[in-house]
Amino acid sequence: MIPLPRKALRRVDEYIPGEQPQTPDFIKLNTNENPYPPSPAVIQTIKNFNEENARRYPDPLCIRLRQYLSEKFSLNIDQIIIGNGSDEILRLLTDAYLDEDDKVAFLNPTYTFFATLAQMREAEIIRFNAIGSDLPIEIAKTSAKMIIIANPNPPFGTFYPPEIIARVCSVAKKTLVVIDEAYVDFATTNCIPLLKHFKNLVVTRSLSKSYALAGLRVGFGVGNSAIIKNLFLIKDSYNINALSQLTALAALKDYKYYAEKIEEIKRERTKMRESLIRMGFDVPESQGNFIFAMGKNPLQIYTALKERKILVRYLTFPKLVKGIRISIGTPKQNKKLMKEIKDII
Amino acid sequence: MIPLPRKALRRVDEYIPGEQPQTPDFIKLNTNENPYPPSPAVIQTIKNFNEENARRYPDPLCIRLRQYLSEKFSLNIDQIIIGNGSDEILRLLTDAYLDEDDKVAFLNPTYTFFATLAQMREAEIIRFNAIGSDLPIEIAKTSAKMIIIANPNPPFGTFYPPEIIARVCSVAKKTLVVIDEAYVDFATTNCIPLLKHFKNLVVTRSLSKSYALAGLRVGFGVGNSAIIKNLFLIKDSYNINALSQLTALAALKDYKYYAEKIEEIKRERTKMRESLIRMGFDVPESQGNFIFAMGKNPLQIYTALKERKILVRYLTFPKLVKGIRISIGTPKQNKKLMKEIKDII
Repeated sequence: MIPLPRKALRRVDEYIPGEQPQTPDFIKLNTNENPYPPSPAVIQTIKNFNEENARRYPDPLCIRLRQYLSEKFSLNIDQIIIGNGSDEILRLLTDAYLDEDDKVAFLNPTYTFFATLAQMREAEIIRFNAIGSDLPIEIAKTSAKMIIIANPNPPFGTFYPPEIIARVCSVAKKTLVVIDEAYVDFATTNCIPLLKHFKNLVVTRSLSKSYALAGLRVGFGVGNSAIIKNLFLIKDSYNINALSQLTALAALKDYKYYAEKIEEIKRERTKMRESLIRMGFDVPESQGNFIFAMGKNPLQIYTALKERKILVRYLTFPKLVKGIRISIGTPKQNKKLMKEIKDII
Repeated sequence: MIPLPRKALRRVDEYIPGEQPQTPDFIKLNTNENPYPPSPAVIQTIKNFNEENARRYPDPLCIRLRQYLSEKFSLNIDQIIIGNGSDEILRLLTDAYLDEDDKVAFLNPTYTFFATLAQMREAEIIRFNAIGSDLPIEIAKTSAKMIIIANPNPPFGTFYPPEIIARVCSVAKKTLVVIDEAYVDFATTNCIPLLKHFKNLVVTRSLSKSYALAGLRVGFGVGNSAIIKNLFLIKDSYNINALSQLTALAALKDYKYYAEKIEEIKRERTKMRESLIRMGFDVPESQGNFIFAMGKNPLQIYTALKERKILVRYLTFPKLVKGIRISIGTPKQNKKLMKEIKDII
């Protein structure tokens, strides 16, 4: 007899990540990886990784990495937790704070993984449509136990200024406000400085995109130490492997290398958006390392591009929007993509 | 205002992993790492790990690793899931199968992390004392939703033969029976062949101990595909980083290298047990890569050893047993330990 899982699982919409072909023959612009390699310091750290690092358990508390981040952001070390990607931090937050039937508020559209997490906790999801550049402030006026806002918010890449997020924290002062800043290094500013003023705020970050470390899975969460303590309580003891701890530290220390690549990506983002608008697409302004193109049969364009060995992501939010989300690649990749799209339409 | 976590968290006993000094000046026999380095094939895989592996997302489905395991164990690939250590698989199992107030049965003493997981799910824990070499078969006769048995079972290292586990699966036929085989490569046999007969059985494994990969965090779970599917549904999308996938495969393929080290560890286990018994300790027979010594002021011995730069683990199970758990080291380390213990007592 096969035992049945808990009932809540039968209602979970599986989160489907973008395709990850394990062969190098695609131009891969579908999962917002950085098109540039990680810093030479990261590569050196991998080369130096020795058998003792592999044999021994890693530091369960990631002290060196948290120490570095605490200095970088002027926070106490107990305000910081490292995750196996920021996805893990988001899961720890929903696991620690959401009980059955608690309300959780999201934007719509947004990162669809939020809903999967909420369903696993049997929480009630309240969605606020966010198509334009303004945050629907009503999101702060519910009885939600938690609000999760990606900022920049995919798939558009809309960035909400810290003043607006501050207003959310201030209006929803009993609510845990989670700002997912996975893409924030491609934006103009960020919300970590707000932590000084709001005890109900947690900010999550990822090294997958801006630091080109998607393969090594490192993210982090910062917030009031009382909140972070609860995440430590429930995390797997050794959640971050030894190599990821070391390479993340090497990457963070070499921000200068990444800053140049980020500027290049931002320049390309503007150029690509303008090209697509000229071709007749509707492309909202993005502060992520991706843009979202609507109109003109997106599914067909996605399919035709795939046949030409270019992967982008076709995304549909029922009754709201659909389009193709394009990660910003190298200038050469972007040029090739634009040429092919022009050819297809 | 600082939002409060869900009530269940206030009742969770934090799992405290063994100390992980990040300096090499200790003889470290406290967390059951393999005293030998990983296979040269693992080291080569790390050297070959390139910037593309770091930059791109890893395979979320770990296809190559699961394919290899499916051949090794004659299972279908959909019967296998890879975890960030077997701790992750155990968490996925409790998250997927335990609802509030469900009963879950453990031995006592056992791996204390099981209780932390159950408390996070607000499940009711039923414990069955297991001091001798026999499994208390009453564990199969409750209305528990899940039974979790570590086999070999720490801290003693007691191994329960597959015939006994088969009886548990057969008596508790509506119950999910989880056998944590983290240490099984140091035992005489294992329970994976039982999967052919029991659909309510899941076996978990770790590469941390026998494969000397504690630092890279890889474990796996095998069972009926309907159960494994539920674990996939709730796991973090990219739970296993790219390097861990590659090194785990390299390690598994070089079992021959490890088999020799494992035989050496088993020989040393026998010698150390005999020495400690001669010194007057009570040391149950162990089929793990550790032994548990009781009697003669264990806390004082632990402390005195630590002063002499040898780490072992002092463990106490209130009203039941206390003692020091000693990981089997290299012959040289073990000899030094025995000398120091003799000197201390």
